[in-house]
Amino acid sequence: MNKFLLAAVQLNSQQDKEENLKKMEKYIIEAAEKGAKVIAFPEGSNYIGDDSRQVAEKIPGGKTFKMISELAKKYSVWIHAGSIYEDRDGEIPYNCNFLVGPDGELKTKYHKLHPFDVDVLNGPSIRESNKVHPGDKIVTFDTKDYGHFGLSICYDMRFPELFRLMTLKGANILFVPANFTMNTGKDHWEPILKTRAIENGCYVVAPAQIGQKPTVAAYGKTIIIDPWGNIIAKSSDREGVILTEIDLDYVEEIRRKIGTLKNRRADIYKVEEI
Amino acid sequence: MNKFLLAAVQLNSQQDKEENLKKMEKYIIEAAEKGAKVIAFPEGSNYIGDDSRQVAEKIPGGKTFKMISELAKKYSVWIHAGSIYEDRDGEIPYNCNFLVGPDGELKTKYHKLHPFDVDVLNGPSIRESNKVHPGDKIVTFDTKDYGHFGLSICYDMRFPELFRLMTLKGANILFVPANFTMNTGKDHWEPILKTRAIENGCYVVAPAQIGQKPTVAAYGKTIIIDPWGNIIAKSSDREGVILTEIDLDYVEEIRRKIGTLKNRRADIYKVEEI
Repeated sequence: MNKFLLAAVQLNSQQDKEENLKKMEKYIIEAAEKGAKVIAFPEGSNYIGDDSRQVAEKIPGGKTFKMISELAKKYSVWIHAGSIYEDRDGEIPYNCNFLVGPDGELKTKYHKLHPFDVDVLNGPSIRESNKVHPGDKIVTFDTKDYGHFGLSICYDMRFPELFRLMTLKGANILFVPANFTMNTGKDHWEPILKTRAIENGCYVVAPAQIGQKPTVAAYGKTIIIDPWGNIIAKSSDREGVILTEIDLDYVEEIRRKIGTLKNRRADIYKVEEI
Repeated sequence: MNKFLLAAVQLNSQQDKEENLKKMEKYIIEAAEKGAKVIAFPEGSNYIGDDSRQVAEKIPGGKTFKMISELAKKYSVWIHAGSIYEDRDGEIPYNCNFLVGPDGELKTKYHKLHPFDVDVLNGPSIRESNKVHPGDKIVTFDTKDYGHFGLSICYDMRFPELFRLMTLKGANILFVPANFTMNTGKDHWEPILKTRAIENGCYVVAPAQIGQKPTVAAYGKTIIIDPWGNIIAKSSDREGVILTEIDLDYVEEIRRKIGTLKNRRADIYKVEEI
């Protein structure tokens, strides 16, 4: 299918995991009933808080995976679960996003490569690496029917190498589930996400957290961007589902017209996965 | 000097080279008299038109170089000449930008790496490679007193590898002289330039052409962006000089706070000049 509906869900996830899972279930049903074939969640979809080790789950096997697996199968949809803490046998967990197919099976998972270790301008210092173990792999997955997905999480979006490499591996839809801060979001969220779409000729799907979190307020502004860089769907400042049509032929058209990849100077510079 | 005034000049260059040179002279004097220590011009500063071979000049040696050299020395300023066609002994010329120091000497020059070979969306097909010979080197230059400059031209801005490599070579001010089209400019100019500033923690100086050109209308919107991604100076839709203060300490502050370069995963991916 070169044209299909994709949904992104904006959440105000908090520390009550049961509550978060109930909302995720509700929005999966809503999105599926509206015709979405792919449903994407933000970072920290099932929990936002400091207790990363205690809430971590097995993927597959854990409660969140099971809920998503059942619904994906029941409604015959692809679900990108945003990210949750993945249990590493009691060690510091991964910040992991995972993808479940319409058969309910785990298709792939990605561990955040770049922990959010920053001193937010006029804001707090944050050291995600104290509670998250960084990943060591670039991950894309070709669904065949609904595009070739590139997986990333939040702060990853600042690093163009990752997005270029996902694109060179074949990705045409780049997922950026996020829990962005207000201070950085107001200046960085839209320009960077638009640029990742434009420079790679990809759709960008960026489901976001909104609301006050333990450390900072989340910026919200869930967006879906087409490969030309137009924002084609955007959330209001509240929880909920946005939907838009993805057209994979448009990816090819834009790449051809603007020379996105063919005009690269691969004789002058190279970007490589190590 | 970690703080100094930098000027960017917006031009409506046309096919009358003498006329363009007169305007460049006028704006150099205006910018210098206002206190600018660095003055930057757009792509095609001395000529916009199809006759690239006939108007090409030697660098150094040609008329445009001499005029800029004399004024740089007279006013003791750095001049980034935007780009002009550089003579290759009668062969298809380079699209070349060059930098002259306050001693009037040529400090470095850069040949556009990525020719503008595109089919503008809802616009004409353009094949710059028919009239310009592409470059083969990434170029930065450390002025010592006024920052370490990274050189690029217009369409180059779409390729993140080039800007990352200039930054890794030490650049903290990235120049993007341009003659951008309306169709692409309205959607791509600001987000991409902001992103190059943010993801590299650099100032971005983007002097632009404005007005109707032989093929298309130029987008204008000359901008100077700080390393956080704020546009700190912007032209009106007419020719003229904009000035702003550059603070090289701010580059270090932003890079430190947001982890721009230190949080890269150099163990997972590498970007290299070949």
